[in-house]
Amino acid sequence: MTRFSFDLRATDGKARSGVISTPRGEIRTPAFMPVGTAATVKAMLPGSVRETGADILLGNTYHLMLRPTAERIDRLGGLHKFMNWERPILTDSGGFQVMSLAALRKLTETGVTFKSHIDGSRHELTPERSMEIQRLLGSDIVMCFDECPALPAERAQIAESMRLSMRWAERSKAAFGDRPGHALFGIQQGGLERDLREESAEALRGIGFDGYAVGGLAVGEGQEAMFGVLDHAPDMLPRDKPRYLMGVGKPDDIVGAVARGIDMMDCVLPSRSGRTGQVFTRRGVLNIKNARHADDPRPLDEACGCPACRGYSRAYLHHVFRSQEIISSMLLTWHNLHYYQELMEGMRAAIAAGRFEDWQAEFHALRSAGDIAPL
Amino acid sequence: MTRFSFDLRATDGKARSGVISTPRGEIRTPAFMPVGTAATVKAMLPGSVRETGADILLGNTYHLMLRPTAERIDRLGGLHKFMNWERPILTDSGGFQVMSLAALRKLTETGVTFKSHIDGSRHELTPERSMEIQRLLGSDIVMCFDECPALPAERAQIAESMRLSMRWAERSKAAFGDRPGHALFGIQQGGLERDLREESAEALRGIGFDGYAVGGLAVGEGQEAMFGVLDHAPDMLPRDKPRYLMGVGKPDDIVGAVARGIDMMDCVLPSRSGRTGQVFTRRGVLNIKNARHADDPRPLDEACGCPACRGYSRAYLHHVFRSQEIISSMLLTWHNLHYYQELMEGMRAAIAAGRFEDWQAEFHALRSAGDIAPL
Repeated sequence: MTRFSFDLRATDGKARSGVISTPRGEIRTPAFMPVGTAATVKAMLPGSVRETGADILLGNTYHLMLRPTAERIDRLGGLHKFMNWERPILTDSGGFQVMSLAALRKLTETGVTFKSHIDGSRHELTPERSMEIQRLLGSDIVMCFDECPALPAERAQIAESMRLSMRWAERSKAAFGDRPGHALFGIQQGGLERDLREESAEALRGIGFDGYAVGGLAVGEGQEAMFGVLDHAPDMLPRDKPRYLMGVGKPDDIVGAVARGIDMMDCVLPSRSGRTGQVFTRRGVLNIKNARHADDPRPLDEACGCPACRGYSRAYLHHVFRSQEIISSMLLTWHNLHYYQELMEGMRAAIAAGRFEDWQAEFHALRSAGDIAPL
Repeated sequence: MTRFSFDLRATDGKARSGVISTPRGEIRTPAFMPVGTAATVKAMLPGSVRETGADILLGNTYHLMLRPTAERIDRLGGLHKFMNWERPILTDSGGFQVMSLAALRKLTETGVTFKSHIDGSRHELTPERSMEIQRLLGSDIVMCFDECPALPAERAQIAESMRLSMRWAERSKAAFGDRPGHALFGIQQGGLERDLREESAEALRGIGFDGYAVGGLAVGEGQEAMFGVLDHAPDMLPRDKPRYLMGVGKPDDIVGAVARGIDMMDCVLPSRSGRTGQVFTRRGVLNIKNARHADDPRPLDEACGCPACRGYSRAYLHHVFRSQEIISSMLLTWHNLHYYQELMEGMRAAIAAGRFEDWQAEFHALRSAGDIAPL
């Protein structure tokens, strides 16, 4: 059986390209992970997600523990079988979404108690329970249970929260145990404070993980502040392990993060935007709802090979969006995920070829020129 | 260029099996036409609709004339290109949906004026305008503009309405003109009154059409009354032309209609039911919302080859339905359309083999035994 491993194959500046090997398949890095919150990437069949080039999905512990429950998914053979996705799955720990979605949260040294946003039922998440849930789901990459304050926050609060997360990281590691072929990732915290980030990284390195996430970003601090942290945070983490930036982001966030040494990312943006009519192309962002598209026979992007661009005009996509047809979410989500995966493939190739700086210049130049002119 | 033609290849009792040829491909009969109301079969990509076995789709003139408008679709290259479906399309005339959906309808000898249910704008439909719209859409099979009272109705009203529809049929034929490769179908009316059905059929035969629809059924009269009409109505129509029963129906309605000599049908039921959690299988109807499915690892139907049955448990389909995930509509619609097309294929094969009576007995026996028992 393949063990979990990371092979760093090329670097270009701080940017890295490599392959994570797991028993369920390889993950080419830099990797973008579509989010399959409730055991589905919304509006997509799993085979279609794979067709976009995704090697790995993200599942949400918080959502799945509430419905249909981890125990039920376990009885049904695990999350992969349940949602018909054979390749790797990373699950978050539930901590972040408890803080953003659940009601009546109570945080103690032990963990968090809360009420479900679905039916008001009472639940508890601890490092041990989070590890158990992620094991029941059959997750390939398990995340430590952590706590993360929204920014801006007082330094003292960020420090206290980070140290709690480091104690939870130790408990997570103990509870995870020895599971060949499965990986446990630690999560660095410390907000925008460089010394706290260093303290967190040191604690995590001391425990030892299969990979390391940069947590506590993309929570309202803005791109400049995020890049400020990413200018040093990845360097604090072991070079020979994957580095995962959680919850990021827009295409330019992703490119900037890769340039700073990040290997993995996830975000709901391409799928959520697909449902709200926001479309990502090489030329930036467009909104299909806009009347300028109503008579436009051209595809979203003439160079894109996704089904939305191969088969449909902007006029059609405008029509089905305005008519609130499900095919609108299906096609725009497919396009956006396809665009994101092409973006990653472009970066992987550029890093391997040692021309990532040129690639970034082209990326920014095409975007700043904007969408094609109306007819 | 292929002309529109109908080749009746086998009969078994009153049941018929054949092939309609059009420049855009063949339609195997008996045929079930999925409904693509607003230029999409809801929750399905056109390629997936084709994979279920559909040879032809139905488009709704009323919906398309209001949004995005027939003129816009024409400018964009026609409905086939617009919605990415290369095979035949039949369009209704708009008459039925004006009566069921629009506001402030006013009916005269000329036609119908009404206000859009979308934005309140004022429109007119006449036989001539309906022919123009269906031509702009690029429809392969065009339906005469007709009027159809809801049942029950007074005999005098049914007679008057039918005679108006026959005058409109004549105007539709004149306005349709000579369009090689495109077909115009007449629509028989007359409610449940045999002599009025005969009078209507005679009028239509006198005008002469490429196919003939039995209209004015599936409007609340019940299966027994509908079958009562179908016991004689198809026989009144030319044997060498396709016979189309509009807006039907449930699987047993469809089987009963084919047994009475119907060649084509359409209905929103399989796609609409897919969105409401109602599932059709060889064993009848099940509702995926029901708690009995929550832990059931079995597919909807172990003998079904659709993606929902090949890849997913009832438990998963229950979960995504309850979570209101779009994939629920996608998978259940696909399953239902697949089931309907398999039903048609089963009937075509049975008729060709001269064993349609046995096939019907098996169809009813399996359904009356009901769904598989809970685990």
